[in-house]
Amino acid sequence: MTESHHADLPADQYQQGIAVMQRLWGEPMATELRSMWRQADPDIERYITAFALGEIWARPTLDLKTRSLICLAAAVALEREGQIRLHTHGALHNGATAAEVTETILQLMIYAGFPAGWQAMLVARQVIAEHAAVENEE
Amino acid sequence: MTESHHADLPADQYQQGIAVMQRLWGEPMATELRSMWRQADPDIERYITAFALGEIWARPTLDLKTRSLICLAAAVALEREGQIRLHTHGALHNGATAAEVTETILQLMIYAGFPAGWQAMLVARQVIAEHAAVENEE
Amino acid sequence: MTESHHADLPADQYQQGIAVMQRLWGEPMATELRSMWRQADPDIERYITAFALGEIWARPTLDLKTRSLICLAAAVALEREGQIRLHTHGALHNGATAAEVTETILQLMIYAGFPAGWQAMLVARQVIAEHAAVENEE
Amino acid sequence: MTESHHADLPADQYQQGIAVMQRLWGEPMATELRSMWRQADPDIERYITAFALGEIWARPTLDLKTRSLICLAAAVALEREGQIRLHTHGALHNGATAAEVTETILQLMIYAGFPAGWQAMLVARQVIAEHAAVENEE
Amino acid sequence: MTESHHADLPADQYQQGIAVMQRLWGEPMATELRSMWRQADPDIERYITAFALGEIWARPTLDLKTRSLICLAAAVALEREGQIRLHTHGALHNGATAAEVTETILQLMIYAGFPAGWQAMLVARQVIAEHAAVENEE
Amino acid sequence: MTESHHADLPADQYQQGIAVMQRLWGEPMATELRSMWRQADPDIERYITAFALGEIWARPTLDLKTRSLICLAAAVALEREGQIRLHTHGALHNGATAAEVTETILQLMIYAGFPAGWQAMLVARQVIAEHAAVENEE
Repeated sequence: MTESHHADLPADQYQQGIAVMQRLWGEPMATELRSMWRQADPDIERYITAFALGEIWARPTLDLKTRSLICLAAAVALEREGQIRLHTHGALHNGATAAEVTETILQLMIYAGFPAGWQAMLVARQVIAEHAAVENEE
Repeated sequence: MTESHHADLPADQYQQGIAVMQRLWGEPMATELRSMWRQADPDIERYITAFALGEIWARPTLDLKTRSLICLAAAVALEREGQIRLHTHGALHNGATAAEVTETILQLMIYAGFPAGWQAMLVARQVIAEHAAVENEE
Repeated sequence: MTESHHADLPADQYQQGIAVMQRLWGEPMATELRSMWRQADPDIERYITAFALGEIWARPTLDLKTRSLICLAAAVALEREGQIRLHTHGALHNGATAAEVTETILQLMIYAGFPAGWQAMLVARQVIAEHAAVENEE
Repeated sequence: MTESHHADLPADQYQQGIAVMQRLWGEPMATELRSMWRQADPDIERYITAFALGEIWARPTLDLKTRSLICLAAAVALEREGQIRLHTHGALHNGATAAEVTETILQLMIYAGFPAGWQAMLVARQVIAEHAAVENEE
Repeated sequence: MTESHHADLPADQYQQGIAVMQRLWGEPMATELRSMWRQADPDIERYITAFALGEIWARPTLDLKTRSLICLAAAVALEREGQIRLHTHGALHNGATAAEVTETILQLMIYAGFPAGWQAMLVARQVIAEHAAVENEE
Repeated sequence: MTESHHADLPADQYQQGIAVMQRLWGEPMATELRSMWRQADPDIERYITAFALGEIWARPTLDLKTRSLICLAAAVALEREGQIRLHTHGALHNGATAAEVTETILQLMIYAGFPAGWQAMLVARQVIAEHAAVENEE
């Protein structure tokens, strides 16, 4: 793994990013994501953790559930499958119901097109099922 | 104005759409929008009023404020200026604060790109100022 | 399978949607698609069947072949692989020749970019081959 | 106006492009477009005239009306206003009725989103009105 | 102008961002942009100045001219007119020739579609003319 | 393999396209790509080889390395995975360092969104590793 010589973000922001990820996505997702970003590039992992999570996601006014639904909406609009999966998980992990995730995607259907809607729903449905299975185990 | 011979949606759904538009965007926006859609095409006005508003926006589980923020997020992601204006208005009209609109757009900046973010914010800022002016008058 | 409590579209529109799908895509595609939409969400299946098929696709003036080529063009422009497959199938099922499908995609190449063009053509080529194989069997 | 030293396309293809533009868009549109492309860059004018028009649009199998409707569909999907205007004009100039243009855009509404649909229709409606005015004069 | 209570980026990164903007776009563009971002939202101005300029644009390995051409390419692909204008300016300000800007856009034509290409070139052509006029004055 | 009856581009332009592909992507990539394009459609192979490669990529002013980085930027912006792979390969094959490819993608992160950035980097990382492996063998 190559070391970064460039990324220059404050250490406390980076630590805050890790803390936000724990609340937002829990384990093992938080660790897996940072590992994947680091595999892409060490600086990318630092930028996303410190700036995207430690600075933007850490802002007040909107809670993590609402932010997740908002990001899910954007992911449906941009037809980004991995992001649909991630933000569905984040929404459910922060108290959204399966019905709220479903409504978010249904609402988007008329703006992003019906195919974007039903394909997003197929992806979200899997994540919803995985969450239900984990909850039943507990 | 040509008459539509094709659109075949239930009359009560259409009436529900008009009612939802009143709650969602108030007057004169609701009437202006329907007039603009009708100018585009009479059937388009019927489809949007009856299906998009009377059926999709009328669904339970998510309130109109949350749906507006979700649609705002998608509009930022798709860089649709008219829609950014509309859903900012809808969010504020249903109790969202200017700060919540701002956070929604800031959150999107890292997903849709910084230029999409700051240009959306310039548009939303105008709508926020218009709302503040109206409230001060009242 | 959860039941929908929300979708409220006229029963005859839904039946018309099923009839349009039979003509447009034939079996087993029509049944498979509705099953996939239902798996995504029961209301999505109702909305697509009743509104998208039973209302929009059912409109006069343009025949199903022309509508399929038009939707294929949009699918190439939006780089939606599943939709390229579906509308190629629909075009061929309604009398389009392989050459007409090919021309539609070639025409799009200069608008959606060359890579969008040749990748769409690879997908369409498979559907064309499947149709030719079925016809040879018959 | 700077001269191009690079564009190297066959002269007959370029002449064919000019001929296709005459049939496709008529005058003064054909001349105006080439003037605008030349203003952008002399080589761009040569490439579009010779390759896009003289080679791609000149192909057999689909007539200019169908190609225009197909390109209109892609323009709606990509929300390119100038292209919506151009291909609506091309469709009408080659025998499409206003109703066929309208159906093409209505069909796209469920794939590109309702706002893309009604905004495209507002643009197309203007072009349709201009054509009707010209026909009434004649 | 409301004050930000949230943006928490290191002061030296912000100062570096201002310095990068001076080199990248010169005056008055650098000041105008920061003013426009601040008008959108004070935190947006801080994020773009400190993170986008002070951190990302400030990285080594690629010079500002190459980065500008790269960002121009992305702006053409995403059909963002303001960004085409900005990065054309940045490229020319850092030693790119008008021909290099032209080639970048011509190269993109086959990937983003011909209309995206020639419309981007019309925009870039204006910026090129403004630069030539300023140089002639000097 | 069906024969094309339509594509009408000059033979020397086609030969120049083959020569450009050899320099740009080397073997076996150049042959594999033309084979894939021909599989899509014989005319598509002729158009891409003669026009995209023999005419556009063959232009002077920008070298193949710079053009590859520019096309990589557009591919990241448009989230086209195959194109990210191809232009990373082309950049490296024409003297770009792994660091230059990395910087191109990092630069795009703030314009195309962070997820587009890190997913592009994962793809590019594989191509970089393959190049390093080949170089170690030699």
